Amino acid sequence: MTKYEAVAQAIKTDIENGLYKEGQPIPTEELLTVQYDVSRQTIRKALSLLVEDNLILKRQGSGSVVRPKRLNPRTGKIAVVATYISDYIFPSQLRAVNDVLSENKYTAVLSATRNCVCNERAILEEILKNPVDGILIEGTKSAMPNPNFDLYEKLIGMDIPVVFFNGYYPSLSGTYSVCADNRAGGAELVRHLIERGHTKIAGFFKSDDIQGHQRYSGFISELFRNGLIIPDENVFWYITETKEDLFNNPQEVLNRLGDNTAVVCYNDEVAFGLIKCLLSAGRRVPEDVAVVSFDNSNLSRISPVTITSLSYEDRNIGRIAAQKLVDILNGKEVTSEVLPWTFIQKESS
Amino acid sequence: MTKYEAVAQAIKTDIENGLYKEGQPIPTEELLTVQYDVSRQTIRKALSLLVEDNLILKRQGSGSVVRPKRLNPRTGKIAVVATYISDYIFPSQLRAVNDVLSENKYTAVLSATRNCVCNERAILEEILKNPVDGILIEGTKSAMPNPNFDLYEKLIGMDIPVVFFNGYYPSLSGTYSVCADNRAGGAELVRHLIERGHTKIAGFFKSDDIQGHQRYSGFISELFRNGLIIPDENVFWYITETKEDLFNNPQEVLNRLGDNTAVVCYNDEVAFGLIKCLLSAGRRVPEDVAVVSFDNSNLSRISPVTITSLSYEDRNIGRIAAQKLVDILNGKEVTSEVLPWTFIQKESS
Repeated sequence: MTKYEAVAQAIKTDIENGLYKEGQPIPTEELLTVQYDVSRQTIRKALSLLVEDNLILKRQGSGSVVRPKRLNPRTGKIAVVATYISDYIFPSQLRAVNDVLSENKYTAVLSATRNCVCNERAILEEILKNPVDGILIEGTKSAMPNPNFDLYEKLIGMDIPVVFFNGYYPSLSGTYSVCADNRAGGAELVRHLIERGHTKIAGFFKSDDIQGHQRYSGFISELFRNGLIIPDENVFWYITETKEDLFNNPQEVLNRLGDNTAVVCYNDEVAFGLIKCLLSAGRRVPEDVAVVSFDNSNLSRISPVTITSLSYEDRNIGRIAAQKLVDILNGKEVTSEVLPWTFIQKESS
Repeated sequence: MTKYEAVAQAIKTDIENGLYKEGQPIPTEELLTVQYDVSRQTIRKALSLLVEDNLILKRQGSGSVVRPKRLNPRTGKIAVVATYISDYIFPSQLRAVNDVLSENKYTAVLSATRNCVCNERAILEEILKNPVDGILIEGTKSAMPNPNFDLYEKLIGMDIPVVFFNGYYPSLSGTYSVCADNRAGGAELVRHLIERGHTKIAGFFKSDDIQGHQRYSGFISELFRNGLIIPDENVFWYITETKEDLFNNPQEVLNRLGDNTAVVCYNDEVAFGLIKCLLSAGRRVPEDVAVVSFDNSNLSRISPVTITSLSYEDRNIGRIAAQKLVDILNGKEVTSEVLPWTFIQKESS
């Protein structure tokens, strides 16, 4: 038996004898080095062994605790709750989620909220009735007050880990999130347009999701930082329920766009709709109006004029979020992540 | 000289001799009772005298500090920044503000943002160029990320007190606010409708102001608490820029209302528009659709069917906010306030 195996065995015996209780912290690494008179490295290897044996959990910022016995029997199931399943960038995100989960012997139980808090409530109630090992979820209407925190808190209290992807609720504690750096993205697109000589820049943003607020925040702050005062009328806000109607009346859109020479779009869906709207009215893109966007989706390639967009490159949020949830279930210490964008120049700007 | 006057004189001498520095705390009440061997009550009376003499300031939760010499010369001016000046409930709020300020020998310098962050920015820049003694302000688009925090922070750094009324930014520290209890109001209106037997309840809410988020939050949480799952499509969201268009297409509104028998409106402006829309389509209020609202404004009285609405009664937010700002300028300790509503039953529900 190596030195670290011996230390691991000694700690294991202490746990079994009830010296350290379930869910309670074990001594810090510093104290353990003194107690067993070994190096920090030996203690770390011993603790890693105990994590692998599912005896202790590393908790972010608070050392290790004795792993509580499962409140719920292991089901091998992970609830994966997206806003949409079959549209836009969601299929590729969900494929990646599924790959990671099945590699780790979990079954994904998939559902979609269509960004409605009433659907989210029904789904969370179903999970409470039939618990799963963990939840991977995209927050619904994450920029609005959420009436389902009571259910989220029940799930967290049942020690079911919750990892948010794309959208999350900043005020809901005890959860993790994996998101794009939306604020930095909004600022980057504005800088690109300013470098191209634009000073009249409009924007389309989604107001019920936190991604929309963050993208707008980077957009408007960067404009103001450059001394460009953009009237509020030049910001087009829409929500889940009005998305389909954005370009119903092209003339109204053109009137509101007025003398703006560039537009930052919330995502490629909006940019695609806007470009079609502009072209059909005889405006040229980018000569008359430059259009930039987020997500670098398939739409950005098949648009009549390909769309300059921010890309996730190989940082698939679904994959990273799923891996994080698996890590948590394996007792590893994880942190929330904000992922940078990659700028992809195409024809629209 | 009474005992407390003698203590006040002694502390004053210490301040003049530089024992306690500008902006720095003076000893706690406990320590002063020991130092001067007098009762707590005597110390309190002495401190009150020093506050009245503008020598010390009581700071919320942190005892008393030596009042710093003004960074800016006293101007006798207060910037009063509203979203709107001449509409709706704003004239009466601003009249009350003006009364309180002029009683206290301040001149109100009035401006309006029309709820645009670009106007708010121009107004704050003007105040930075021509400082005032204090700012009474209604937050602009307070439920959206605000790009003007840099200017607010400069003003706060110049020791110009800022009191928000109606709308405020929860994440902007170092300021005070006076608001209605919008969340409780939303819940109260839902309870009223449920007591009247309604189970299908729609809502109209403003999404760019925090009041809209709070009223919605009370509305939706109270529905869910009562087991009523209201589809997200039954919540009509609008913003400053789309307010005028809410009832342009009455048939669309009626279609979306569907089989809802009651509606909670963001305010009497919306309720007034909705009632006119319903009546013109041959629907009866409240027999077919009950309508309840916030603000108990003049509109709630002159509506074709008078509107059941939550009232401020004699709690004029403008008066209370202005008094708070005057108190701060006089060195008094103040706290933010959330004011309760009074339910006023009329014909519409």
